[in-house]
Amino acid sequence: MREVTPLQEVYNQSAYKLANHGARSVHVLKKAFEEMNGDVAGDLYGTGQIIDDFQDKMAAFLGKENAVFFPSGTMAQQIALRIWCDEKGDKKVAYHPLSHLEIHEEDGLKELHNIETVLLTDRDRVIDLKDVMNMEDGVAAVLLELPQREIGGQLPSFETLEKISQYCSERGIRLHLDGARLLEVLPYYQKSAAEVCALFDSVYLSLYKGIGGIAGAILAGDRDFIKQSKVWKRRYGGDLISLYPYTVPADYYLDLRSSKMEQYFREAKEVAERFNSCYGISTLPEVPVSTMFHVHFQHSKEQVGPLLLQIEQETEIGLTNHLKEINEQSCYFEVHMGDMYSEIPKELVTRAFDLLDKSMKHL
Amino acid sequence: MREVTPLQEVYNQSAYKLANHGARSVHVLKKAFEEMNGDVAGDLYGTGQIIDDFQDKMAAFLGKENAVFFPSGTMAQQIALRIWCDEKGDKKVAYHPLSHLEIHEEDGLKELHNIETVLLTDRDRVIDLKDVMNMEDGVAAVLLELPQREIGGQLPSFETLEKISQYCSERGIRLHLDGARLLEVLPYYQKSAAEVCALFDSVYLSLYKGIGGIAGAILAGDRDFIKQSKVWKRRYGGDLISLYPYTVPADYYLDLRSSKMEQYFREAKEVAERFNSCYGISTLPEVPVSTMFHVHFQHSKEQVGPLLLQIEQETEIGLTNHLKEINEQSCYFEVHMGDMYSEIPKELVTRAFDLLDKSMKHL
Repeated sequence: MREVTPLQEVYNQSAYKLANHGARSVHVLKKAFEEMNGDVAGDLYGTGQIIDDFQDKMAAFLGKENAVFFPSGTMAQQIALRIWCDEKGDKKVAYHPLSHLEIHEEDGLKELHNIETVLLTDRDRVIDLKDVMNMEDGVAAVLLELPQREIGGQLPSFETLEKISQYCSERGIRLHLDGARLLEVLPYYQKSAAEVCALFDSVYLSLYKGIGGIAGAILAGDRDFIKQSKVWKRRYGGDLISLYPYTVPADYYLDLRSSKMEQYFREAKEVAERFNSCYGISTLPEVPVSTMFHVHFQHSKEQVGPLLLQIEQETEIGLTNHLKEINEQSCYFEVHMGDMYSEIPKELVTRAFDLLDKSMKHL
Repeated sequence: MREVTPLQEVYNQSAYKLANHGARSVHVLKKAFEEMNGDVAGDLYGTGQIIDDFQDKMAAFLGKENAVFFPSGTMAQQIALRIWCDEKGDKKVAYHPLSHLEIHEEDGLKELHNIETVLLTDRDRVIDLKDVMNMEDGVAAVLLELPQREIGGQLPSFETLEKISQYCSERGIRLHLDGARLLEVLPYYQKSAAEVCALFDSVYLSLYKGIGGIAGAILAGDRDFIKQSKVWKRRYGGDLISLYPYTVPADYYLDLRSSKMEQYFREAKEVAERFNSCYGISTLPEVPVSTMFHVHFQHSKEQVGPLLLQIEQETEIGLTNHLKEINEQSCYFEVHMGDMYSEIPKELVTRAFDLLDKSMKHL
């Protein structure tokens, strides 16, 4: 079992939360099924109206021929890259050094598929056209993550995306979108999901990140690609007899929150500005380009932790439940804006940031 | 979308069902969560009380050090076999030619792990000690499926299991139990789950088959084995952020039905006897040794289908929703006894089998 840190404990008990959509409790599932008629038939090995309708809706939303639900993005993305490698006959893909596949999947891509990976750029910046132009030969597919989560949700410009897409397309290199948090970048790009996805051969969208669902992922692409992905889904053991416990909440929370991304984006910029106005605190990026950002402190985790804890106790606002050490002189935490922020009285927000500023000056 | 056959349609509309626990509708999920407090915290990447407690309970039930939930048996079993292959340094496993891994998984074991498979026996009989003794060298693990579903749920004797276990143990060959339907064979063996599992190094139990859950699987074994399996679970994308939508129903339906296996077993023998008393019908096995069996007809699917359909319409008892062709002169369907059978008035059962016998004589 994971140990509950003092910061987590105080965060959990806070009346308000700065970020996210609320606790990941069983309530999230119960709410999504509350209004649903129990007589509705469950899906059966990926078939049935309850899953077909949802997948069709997602395909249309992403502007792709077909879409299929996967239990996880890990599974969906490895499979997408494997299909593109098989198509080209080259077992090599390229992505950011902080890609989910590189740092969070126990090397599944390499261990299960023997796929070689090319790291396209430095850890602290987003992929640019020249990174793709300068990459070694034999790459079957390039994966772009929008936003680049591990560096605060930064983004290339839409123009850069278009250029990378064109470059790859002309050279027969497949372009895959790690769009786990795709919805969260649409307000910045001022594009529809389909307009962004049109630049990519295959697309993965998370069904919990950003929208506050329970788990799951959508993989979308052309008919033949999705057909192949279903064979691999079975090989992986992802073709569960019934997936509706995830697809129904996904559908529910997508409907509830996909139209609120503009609000979260606006609030992300507002909250980031508040953090940046505090002594010794800066956000990455300085001005958010999605609904997320990182909050950096030029002090150790051991110094910042108790300070945040005290502010949370005094103001009843849970600012964060985690703090990550960068080195002995710095640490950061991640912020994803959600439904919780607008519930906090504005004067309380102001008070919390005043306190934060003052406390930082005394550190 | 799967096409709904006339047989399925009539089956679905029948007031009674001969087998199973009822429709796989959304009601199955709603019922399991009905009494649960929504404030209970969900699990987070395999941790948290809601999943820890369940896994501990399953480990104790199966008599193993540790147990871990997997989204599917496909994933759990491939991983178990991979771990045993890595341990021995031989990428070869042995199982029945109609093993789930051989016929239902799109060759995942071979495609994802390059594991070679040895088919231990003929398709129409269960694995015996001599099959294991005569197998080629270099097998890292033997998988036994209890009951052997594709041949009507047949079983080796418990004495044979003990001998195979001893033989493998003495030669450093790991023994894995495909116990998808383990609970269903306990009344025949007159053993506890732990007593059967004690003969195996690793065990998989389905969390929906037999008990009527939604989906999911348990993998159990010693501490080090389970620790390794969790790394592979992440590689596969099976380490979902929250798995409680499956573990909660699994726990609920296990509690509800694991004690009813004696009843289902008794009813399986009763219903098989009724089928065997009908002209031109025989069950496999003749006397069930688990809660399941197959019903064989010495007529084509095209002849038997309309006959069953008519009986279902006349008696309001859904006998089966599927019929599998063996060849042009024979077909069969599978029966899994469950909660539905005891709800049918006995005189209606008698009438249905009288009608079946009469109709078969006129075919």
